[in-house]
Amino acid sequence: MIIQLEKTISESQLGQLEKKLTTIDYKTNKVSTQYGDYIIGVGKKEFDIRSIGTMPGIRDIHRVSDAYKLVSKKWKVNDTQIDLGDGVVIGTGNFQIMAGPCSIESEEQIEATVAHLVKNNIRIMRGGVYKPRSSPYSFRGLGIDGLKIFYQKCSAAGIKIITEVMMVEQIESMHDYIDIYQVGARNSQNFNLLDALGKVDKPVMLKRGISGTINELLQAAEYIFSNGNERIMLCERGIRSYETAYRNTLDINAIPILKDKTHLPVIVDPSHGIGVRKHVESVALAGVIAGADAVIVEVHETPEKAFSDGQQTLNNQEAESLYDHLRRTFELRESFK
Amino acid sequence: MIIQLEKTISESQLGQLEKKLTTIDYKTNKVSTQYGDYIIGVGKKEFDIRSIGTMPGIRDIHRVSDAYKLVSKKWKVNDTQIDLGDGVVIGTGNFQIMAGPCSIESEEQIEATVAHLVKNNIRIMRGGVYKPRSSPYSFRGLGIDGLKIFYQKCSAAGIKIITEVMMVEQIESMHDYIDIYQVGARNSQNFNLLDALGKVDKPVMLKRGISGTINELLQAAEYIFSNGNERIMLCERGIRSYETAYRNTLDINAIPILKDKTHLPVIVDPSHGIGVRKHVESVALAGVIAGADAVIVEVHETPEKAFSDGQQTLNNQEAESLYDHLRRTFELRESFK
Amino acid sequence: MIIQLEKTISESQLGQLEKKLTTIDYKTNKVSTQYGDYIIGVGKKEFDIRSIGTMPGIRDIHRVSDAYKLVSKKWKVNDTQIDLGDGVVIGTGNFQIMAGPCSIESEEQIEATVAHLVKNNIRIMRGGVYKPRSSPYSFRGLGIDGLKIFYQKCSAAGIKIITEVMMVEQIESMHDYIDIYQVGARNSQNFNLLDALGKVDKPVMLKRGISGTINELLQAAEYIFSNGNERIMLCERGIRSYETAYRNTLDINAIPILKDKTHLPVIVDPSHGIGVRKHVESVALAGVIAGADAVIVEVHETPEKAFSDGQQTLNNQEAESLYDHLRRTFELRESFK
Amino acid sequence: MIIQLEKTISESQLGQLEKKLTTIDYKTNKVSTQYGDYIIGVGKKEFDIRSIGTMPGIRDIHRVSDAYKLVSKKWKVNDTQIDLGDGVVIGTGNFQIMAGPCSIESEEQIEATVAHLVKNNIRIMRGGVYKPRSSPYSFRGLGIDGLKIFYQKCSAAGIKIITEVMMVEQIESMHDYIDIYQVGARNSQNFNLLDALGKVDKPVMLKRGISGTINELLQAAEYIFSNGNERIMLCERGIRSYETAYRNTLDINAIPILKDKTHLPVIVDPSHGIGVRKHVESVALAGVIAGADAVIVEVHETPEKAFSDGQQTLNNQEAESLYDHLRRTFELRESFK
Repeated sequence: MIIQLEKTISESQLGQLEKKLTTIDYKTNKVSTQYGDYIIGVGKKEFDIRSIGTMPGIRDIHRVSDAYKLVSKKWKVNDTQIDLGDGVVIGTGNFQIMAGPCSIESEEQIEATVAHLVKNNIRIMRGGVYKPRSSPYSFRGLGIDGLKIFYQKCSAAGIKIITEVMMVEQIESMHDYIDIYQVGARNSQNFNLLDALGKVDKPVMLKRGISGTINELLQAAEYIFSNGNERIMLCERGIRSYETAYRNTLDINAIPILKDKTHLPVIVDPSHGIGVRKHVESVALAGVIAGADAVIVEVHETPEKAFSDGQQTLNNQEAESLYDHLRRTFELRESFK
Repeated sequence: MIIQLEKTISESQLGQLEKKLTTIDYKTNKVSTQYGDYIIGVGKKEFDIRSIGTMPGIRDIHRVSDAYKLVSKKWKVNDTQIDLGDGVVIGTGNFQIMAGPCSIESEEQIEATVAHLVKNNIRIMRGGVYKPRSSPYSFRGLGIDGLKIFYQKCSAAGIKIITEVMMVEQIESMHDYIDIYQVGARNSQNFNLLDALGKVDKPVMLKRGISGTINELLQAAEYIFSNGNERIMLCERGIRSYETAYRNTLDINAIPILKDKTHLPVIVDPSHGIGVRKHVESVALAGVIAGADAVIVEVHETPEKAFSDGQQTLNNQEAESLYDHLRRTFELRESFK
Repeated sequence: MIIQLEKTISESQLGQLEKKLTTIDYKTNKVSTQYGDYIIGVGKKEFDIRSIGTMPGIRDIHRVSDAYKLVSKKWKVNDTQIDLGDGVVIGTGNFQIMAGPCSIESEEQIEATVAHLVKNNIRIMRGGVYKPRSSPYSFRGLGIDGLKIFYQKCSAAGIKIITEVMMVEQIESMHDYIDIYQVGARNSQNFNLLDALGKVDKPVMLKRGISGTINELLQAAEYIFSNGNERIMLCERGIRSYETAYRNTLDINAIPILKDKTHLPVIVDPSHGIGVRKHVESVALAGVIAGADAVIVEVHETPEKAFSDGQQTLNNQEAESLYDHLRRTFELRESFK
Repeated sequence: MIIQLEKTISESQLGQLEKKLTTIDYKTNKVSTQYGDYIIGVGKKEFDIRSIGTMPGIRDIHRVSDAYKLVSKKWKVNDTQIDLGDGVVIGTGNFQIMAGPCSIESEEQIEATVAHLVKNNIRIMRGGVYKPRSSPYSFRGLGIDGLKIFYQKCSAAGIKIITEVMMVEQIESMHDYIDIYQVGARNSQNFNLLDALGKVDKPVMLKRGISGTINELLQAAEYIFSNGNERIMLCERGIRSYETAYRNTLDINAIPILKDKTHLPVIVDPSHGIGVRKHVESVALAGVIAGADAVIVEVHETPEKAFSDGQQTLNNQEAESLYDHLRRTFELRESFK
């Protein structure tokens, strides 16, 4: 149950509400975000919700039977849009492409990528400076210094950036140099990180766990929202299956299902979703026609020299063809409405 | 290694060839299909293939290192087309829709479906008369009598039919009443059935196993081809995963990968692929933009009354919207070439 | 709902029963096996089962809410024993080992294996004469002629045999030369084969599908039972997972769960269950301590020369150590009761 | 490649070694733990390792081709023992049981559990004070205050404790109140947490990820070791599969495979491994006979009132039977050597 509070609700009205909920054995959680104040009530007893909905200080009340609450479409039927500023908006009616290398490697690499993005009218650059790697002996990213250069070059060109945050301690130092925090698949249920990202007023893109369920992804997003941050995107990036002909199994089903269950924007990552360069376009287009609000894709001037993920990274020429096809596919989808 | 033989090859030339292969420790398999004669050589020794290619009676020779041979694109780079007659062709440059109920239930149902297909210019009807069911106490189909009516109504309307064959004994009795034999997911590695279907000159659509790998699917097709039947289609119908938010996980990755590895047409089954009626369209479109040559979809006048699979079956109105969107998506894909 | 009938029930009493069931909207299936006659009622209405239980000609009546009925422990709480004759009994209180090669290869191989089994007091030999193989170009077994020699050598030594049947047509010709029909993992939902095996009075060992659920396995067994054959064993042989460090994932959980849900004997196949020779013993012992009634294991005098499955086959010496440890593990388990 | 250094190696000798490795294009990583100093060389060139092994200051040199190095059995063939003090040793020749509730709930609960453990001669108590929960609205544990009481009660009774650490910031505050840090399945690839636990001199038990591979588990352990902490245990706790008849699929295969690949102790968690109370014993025994060095099991005086995981928690009486059977199973396994 979600109770939306008026901004003007008084302490005594709030007290009355909580007393009322206690009498029907509902546990309450108070949530305050950049956009509103909510009481989440968790309990089992049936009752007439109007008896609460008509109390003073209450804007609205909604039953939400899902395990997740605030991220559910059951109370918020209009899809969430996330405005990054400068005309870059993610979500319903907009289509965005996030492109760039797996890892930020050098100033030259950033500049070349920025030029490529500007040429193709792409407004969001991806690139990792903290890299989760299976082996401790692998390249682990340029860190905060790399991020500063990355941000400076991009903001100068009007390009927003998205990059992965791996631990709570990094959040603050990264804050002034990012536009979107990315939570990687391996941290999809790192609840302390999610708690902390809920306390920051920057958008978060949350990747589905390596074998995360759709429910777990939505509950992970609920962690962020319930800590105060409504600006969340969800990313389908392939799940682990028995098939070995490619890297991950892009779960195309997850896209319409997420769009149906949640009001949050849904992003598709075809690069990790299949992991094979020559097939990235096919599954990227599939993601868009199936309903994705944006695509995040790995692009590098010379994929064969990339520090990581080269085998699934497009070169500039392949990427340009992809961008065109993505946009035409999005237009076709829009025409179906 | 695949050796294509001339039709005119003599017994003694063939003997020489086999002797030559024996000397380099290759096991040979002779394959004769409706279109050609082949020797499949399996061995490990490296040798100059020209020493065989220039022998009399040999049309061509190809190295194929895959576990599957004749279905591989490595020797036959032009995609296979399957002509069902009356202008109904499956494969490259054509786009087909196969639609109809999960189970054939009655003459009235067939007639209603045929009318719907004719109205929408759909040339292939699906419908099961032998139904594999998890429980022995469930409806198992109308059998051969149902098939005869099904075929008669369809052929009268210029519509081709596809229906599942479950056992070797059924092949002959079904032969005169079908256009395409379907092998279901549970029989995907029923090798005796595949052997037998290789000996019939009717097209076969082979579904991927419930958790079959792409390699296993191609090797299953190899059974059919190597027994003499080149007219094979492969069908991606979703795989089993840990996710429970839907029925099966449509493996969208499999589509470009199959199109890359084999010359056979690839069909997508969005109905089983997601198993949730309201999301069938999204994944069907995804399958087409990713490269499928045809879509097979469950449609019923009144899905809520269907004998089986009602929860994933479209009603006529939903289906008509789907057909339109499928065709426009196929056109877009063609325009990308 | 399972209704056990008296052998003496009259036609008119049976008619009354079916009429009664029809009035409460239950679909009925009559089942006659080597041991009893049953009516399986499938319906949803609640009613007092005593109103049927007290009718003439009824031995007993049981509610069974599972999807499977006759194989459920809910109506038959005492575990089924399968007596192969000559003192070889499978099931509760007995522990059996089935050992032998993956494929029957030659008369010499059979003789060597029989000598090994006799020496170790093993009463059941395994060995395939029809081999399901991923590739059509692989060795597919010696067929019926091999089976005849296999059976003759074994029966002369007092050893029972188990071998795989792949298609309905093989059942009759194999009948006089086997003690247990084995259904392989790929045929686990070959419903026509299961139907036919239900009509034969020889025991059947049914392997779990490559990614079959426990429920599917039990429903597959229900096919056999409901066609008339109560003598069924279930075999856990590993499932398909994402892990690539071994061949299959032996589902140890399935063993106590099957023993809890069904009265049928449960066999563990550690050879396929892990697929790595040096670890076969560890998982075999695990299967026994967890409750398996028997173990089926691949053994060959010279595994490195075996026609198939050599990498998971024990040599005689390894096998002898295993037999001893298996028996001591079974004794320990029995002492826990 | 692992190079073990003498404690007495001089700076100049170290310099020479690194220079030598550079000349053959090996990247080097210096590792210093509580027990030794190592250089990990990562490269591809073949060379005679004796040319390094005979340099001054070098104790030994080993080729390790696995992706993980220091945790591999290829260089350290004797299994690691972890001595917790007071005669509590984990690893080869010892068998330990870790028992207790999922969550620490109250002082009374701790006292009751301690009494139960003392009575049964169990030396390690488990219990969570930081609880990772799918939903942000669930009970998340008593935190550091709960830990202090937990530790105080246990140490007074000579019992060691193991509890989960979820984030880097918790490590220091927990340090004086724990005997073993547990890393949960969801943090199995939280590389920053692993890095930090490598810098602490307390043992760490690392759980396999929800769908982690065996290789990933070993590489995660490599993070801890390479940061300086050799005292690591690995825990198999079930993986995610398609089967829904139980909670997780205990991967029994992983136990012999881990014992073969690594020198670290291996623990089995049957409670999460199957998730069904009545079957916990069967799979616990399976884990032990297959080679586990210890068992970690959920026990609660009144499982039906437990704050979490009640459905898989044993009551005291069930637990006592389990302890007896576990010890007898371990004895049997030892007798096989």
